[in-house]
Amino acid sequence: MIGIFPLRGLPEIEPGADLGALLHAGAGAAGGFVPDDIVVVTQKVVSKAEGRLYPDGGKEAHIEREARRILRRSGTLLIAETHHGFVCANAGVDSSNVPLGSVALLPEDPDASARRLRAQLEHLSGFRLGVVISDTFGRAWRLGQTDVAIGVAGFEPLTDHRGSRDSEGRVLHATNICTADELAGAAELAMGKSTRVCAAIVRGVEVAWGRGTAAQIVRPPGEDLFR
Amino acid sequence: MIGIFPLRGLPEIEPGADLGALLHAGAGAAGGFVPDDIVVVTQKVVSKAEGRLYPDGGKEAHIEREARRILRRSGTLLIAETHHGFVCANAGVDSSNVPLGSVALLPEDPDASARRLRAQLEHLSGFRLGVVISDTFGRAWRLGQTDVAIGVAGFEPLTDHRGSRDSEGRVLHATNICTADELAGAAELAMGKSTRVCAAIVRGVEVAWGRGTAAQIVRPPGEDLFR
Repeated sequence: MIGIFPLRGLPEIEPGADLGALLHAGAGAAGGFVPDDIVVVTQKVVSKAEGRLYPDGGKEAHIEREARRILRRSGTLLIAETHHGFVCANAGVDSSNVPLGSVALLPEDPDASARRLRAQLEHLSGFRLGVVISDTFGRAWRLGQTDVAIGVAGFEPLTDHRGSRDSEGRVLHATNICTADELAGAAELAMGKSTRVCAAIVRGVEVAWGRGTAAQIVRPPGEDLFR
Repeated sequence: MIGIFPLRGLPEIEPGADLGALLHAGAGAAGGFVPDDIVVVTQKVVSKAEGRLYPDGGKEAHIEREARRILRRSGTLLIAETHHGFVCANAGVDSSNVPLGSVALLPEDPDASARRLRAQLEHLSGFRLGVVISDTFGRAWRLGQTDVAIGVAGFEPLTDHRGSRDSEGRVLHATNICTADELAGAAELAMGKSTRVCAAIVRGVEVAWGRGTAAQIVRPPGEDLFR
């Protein structure tokens, strides 16, 4: 069985906030961590704590600076590849749930942010934990957005079944599940939007513990058929 | 809090199997349904129960017949749009976890399959339930696959936050979460692959109950920037 516990009661996150300590306190209010919990934290509060807020006036300029490449423009919609390699709307520059007059940029290095949060949360709890930093991305062929992982620490984001055998003994050739993205989406189900819930604990998922990163999820442009 | 409960102990599903009765029995072994549970069932067992198994020999012919359009070919990889409008590898034709010598096609009308299962499970349980039929799809720009919804019954697959206000009172313009896909991915975390677990109950998710379908998730080709 898997349990997903939203962390409630965290204060508004300000630049410079000790997000790890606040998450640990929030987890305490939700009954505390247990070993092997995965903590999913939304990008917006990581960006806020890291001071990645800028005046709204130059949103276009921020997008240009955050984008490595513009893939498509359609009306006000701009699909860009960020300098991390993520493909998303507006290169991740977003004004929702940030102070009026500001926009938030993605963390400069979300995997490093995840590693720092993990180290702090493991230190405070004494347990092995995983961390996912999530963001809300659209998809090419499907309407709506889902939360996906832009930062990972503590486990392998991809669960590779290739080479294992199915129920008939047939070798699986293609199955390589992006567990980190499914964790981010599952946590979104518990958090919702605009409710000031910025993190959730996912408990009971079998992951491959290790040194994985969200950078590993980025499809290399050379292998990409749709860029 | 959200709970995800895999349904264990179901028999191998044969063509003509009464999948609804088997899922109800499996749920009973897991403690039974409660009102507003969402039942996520993998496509493969729905296809098997509906007799969508064909001899492996003509896999290419099956793909040609299932595809409305071939989007990309790269080596043995073929990305196609199915007649339902889904964009996925091999138009959903797949040989994993089916009897040797066979391939499985997607259900002809996965939303209708979901509605039938829902009607049966609601009748057997006496509770309001939702149903998702899930399949494992790749993504354009991200490595690995995630489970997504190809059939939906009982609720709206998209949770539209557009027009609502964020924590600062700002109107949200873009946020329209594909809850059905996040439900499918969350269930995958509990089911894994090649373990004969073909369904899970997701409990505690706030959905908009209604007459939604997975067809609503398909981005109309005319609005699609990457087809």
